[in-house]
Amino acid sequence: MTTDTALSDLDFNPGELAVGPDVADLLFREAHTVSTFTDDAVSDEQIQAAYDLLRWGPTAMNTLPLRLLLVRTPEARASLAEHMSEGNRARVLAAPLTIVAAADTNFHEHLGVLVPHLPNARDMFAGDAAGREAMARSSALIQVGYLIVALRATGLHAGPMGGMDAAGIDADLLADSGWKSLLVINVGLPAGPESVRPRAPRLEFSQVARTL
Amino acid sequence: MTTDTALSDLDFNPGELAVGPDVADLLFREAHTVSTFTDDAVSDEQIQAAYDLLRWGPTAMNTLPLRLLLVRTPEARASLAEHMSEGNRARVLAAPLTIVAAADTNFHEHLGVLVPHLPNARDMFAGDAAGREAMARSSALIQVGYLIVALRATGLHAGPMGGMDAAGIDADLLADSGWKSLLVINVGLPAGPESVRPRAPRLEFSQVARTL
Repeated sequence: MTTDTALSDLDFNPGELAVGPDVADLLFREAHTVSTFTDDAVSDEQIQAAYDLLRWGPTAMNTLPLRLLLVRTPEARASLAEHMSEGNRARVLAAPLTIVAAADTNFHEHLGVLVPHLPNARDMFAGDAAGREAMARSSALIQVGYLIVALRATGLHAGPMGGMDAAGIDADLLADSGWKSLLVINVGLPAGPESVRPRAPRLEFSQVARTL
Repeated sequence: MTTDTALSDLDFNPGELAVGPDVADLLFREAHTVSTFTDDAVSDEQIQAAYDLLRWGPTAMNTLPLRLLLVRTPEARASLAEHMSEGNRARVLAAPLTIVAAADTNFHEHLGVLVPHLPNARDMFAGDAAGREAMARSSALIQVGYLIVALRATGLHAGPMGGMDAAGIDADLLADSGWKSLLVINVGLPAGPESVRPRAPRLEFSQVARTL
């Protein structure tokens, strides 16, 4: 996967992949949701390395509403665990790092920088809090998809969890931020083969695609 | 990027990437939203190759609600274009392939297969249409993130568009399917350097992340 040997694989070849099988396995085919992790610490630098990939992914109008709350202290961890569904509490308390992925409903404050070709973009959204929240949630969820792939591209493994009281998290951990929690992701290295469930089935292409 | 040369790069190395710089560029750093494409056809097999990656990405309870409507015929293309915002119409008419990414509000019908460890999963959702739609939209949007990365991993380029009348698309192209359109993605190969805008700015890690 050095640049020299890789370039020829980037040539377009219909029906084949433009990445090697090892990359396809790492990012998608062999990647599993992880529930128990080793004690190895996960640094801010590692999450930043993932962010430095995901931030290039497209969002509506380049609004980039995804925000990341890195939960590290025992106090913050305990507060978050209280708002998780019962089966997820111990995982949040034990993971090396837990990230609350959130949508910033005040994303419009950055649009003067992010959308230079539309000078009035900020003002278009300033009076429409409900519209901002819907748009923030949609684009931030797409960015969660980028985030999970990007974490894997840094060598980390992810354990995303939707079973939580989002309003409780917002009130206790995100008060006055304008951030709305979307899901919670444990991050680290898998403790061992027992850290993942057996692979559950997936739908076939013919079950998800139609042609008109 | 052959398997032999790649494996050493998959060793975990904190702060560095587990994929080569060419892969990081292809999937994220050098990838751009494309607005005009070459005339090269995009086959079902190419989209299936992308699906065969994205389908392994995690979704809430393994619900896998993303659905793909591949718009090919002139009639379907014209019908879709009518529901796009003005700036997106010509793009939909000209792209080699346009995909309507949608959320299947009847995803629960597959849960007997997809969630074998919860035999009553289908019935939990059967009476809650509003809850199903919210869950379908959230997980399908995360899958849209996987889809865009997966298309790039097959060598294709994507032009995602949110400027559309989703209800109109649902009524005209997705009637009686239970699918709800999320966004529309043109797919193909870029026509040339003028097919992409100059890169817009992105937020820094310090602007999107907080630690507790």
